[in-house]
Amino acid sequence: MELLHHFRDTSLAALALTHRSAGKPNNERMEFLGDALLGAIVAEMLYETHPKASEGEMSRLRAQLVNGQALAVMARELELGDRLKLGSGELKSGGFRRDSILADAFEALVAAVYLDAGFEACRKAVRTLFADRVAALPRSSKDAKTRLQEWLQARGWPLPQYELVGAEGEDHARTFDVNCAVSEPLVVTASGRGGSRRLAEQDAAEIVLSRLQEAQDGG
Amino acid sequence: MELLHHFRDTSLAALALTHRSAGKPNNERMEFLGDALLGAIVAEMLYETHPKASEGEMSRLRAQLVNGQALAVMARELELGDRLKLGSGELKSGGFRRDSILADAFEALVAAVYLDAGFEACRKAVRTLFADRVAALPRSSKDAKTRLQEWLQARGWPLPQYELVGAEGEDHARTFDVNCAVSEPLVVTASGRGGSRRLAEQDAAEIVLSRLQEAQDGG
Repeated sequence: MELLHHFRDTSLAALALTHRSAGKPNNERMEFLGDALLGAIVAEMLYETHPKASEGEMSRLRAQLVNGQALAVMARELELGDRLKLGSGELKSGGFRRDSILADAFEALVAAVYLDAGFEACRKAVRTLFADRVAALPRSSKDAKTRLQEWLQARGWPLPQYELVGAEGEDHARTFDVNCAVSEPLVVTASGRGGSRRLAEQDAAEIVLSRLQEAQDGG
Repeated sequence: MELLHHFRDTSLAALALTHRSAGKPNNERMEFLGDALLGAIVAEMLYETHPKASEGEMSRLRAQLVNGQALAVMARELELGDRLKLGSGELKSGGFRRDSILADAFEALVAAVYLDAGFEACRKAVRTLFADRVAALPRSSKDAKTRLQEWLQARGWPLPQYELVGAEGEDHARTFDVNCAVSEPLVVTASGRGGSRRLAEQDAAEIVLSRLQEAQDGG
């Protein structure tokens, strides 16, 4: 069976493709392990490719790549549906086409690669599969203030106001607090903190931008 | 610096211990990666040590081991507080004693080991640190029906009722649905599914037991 990887122990791949409707043992435990491995390997990819992204940004990007729907798409590309082992009920109702069942099998398969051949083999298979998707993500090489400004200008909206609201600590190790506010057509305010006024502004701009993007995605 | 691991690149360890209050760069991005690695490595430990645990059970056990409070305890054992780099504000307010700051530094340090020496070194360090804690977890070698029965008997509560509520599919590949109900002093019902009536009962018992445990922990 050639799926992601050339399995030495093909029973691992078979188990990964066995849905709980087919009885026990099934892929549920493997799915738990695969989900965790996938999270770590994709986290590393984002850590490398997005050196300026904040923790929150990387977390959002990962959720874009690793979610039930996205994994079901990858499962279909690997034609996992044809190889799933399902109970007769799921078989009749077309379980092999269902996103959740496909995504779970994909995650279980990641664990199967790990159990068969170790972390480096698993990492290599996952990186190969996700390479194009990660490369297609927006780069945030520009700083947050610039990205916020461009985002607002692209919509013809007024620019944000930054205000220094506090500074504490000795001269050689001060912390600055800055508010960033956008008032039209959406009202969003956030405060940022940093070791310089500029860094505090970047921090605040990052938060405002992500809230604006969420508001737009939601609407 | 000897922390979990002998660092070749000590700047990685130093970055892992730099809190955001000290400015940028700090350990926030590393924390994202470390959290993911920790999740995967502990998932594997549970996968090995709890071969009969369900996905949900492993997930609960992991949450018991990997959470802010538990990681802060481990951070204190490693005396991370003394080595943290904090901004002056956090320094004055005792940030080096705060659970969240300690737990974040611990996670970042896990990532630092990975970046310094690769997955096997990171896995080894994490497994060493968690070995006793994982060994101290309750074993669930008994099946779920037995565990549920013992749990109820230990409290002098009535035993559960199992009811077959459905069966579908051809004879050679049937799926059974069973309800498991506990009525006194708590009312909990769950349905389970499996390739045999016994497996469906186990499945239902597992869910009922975990809900009872949650209800008890919560109260």
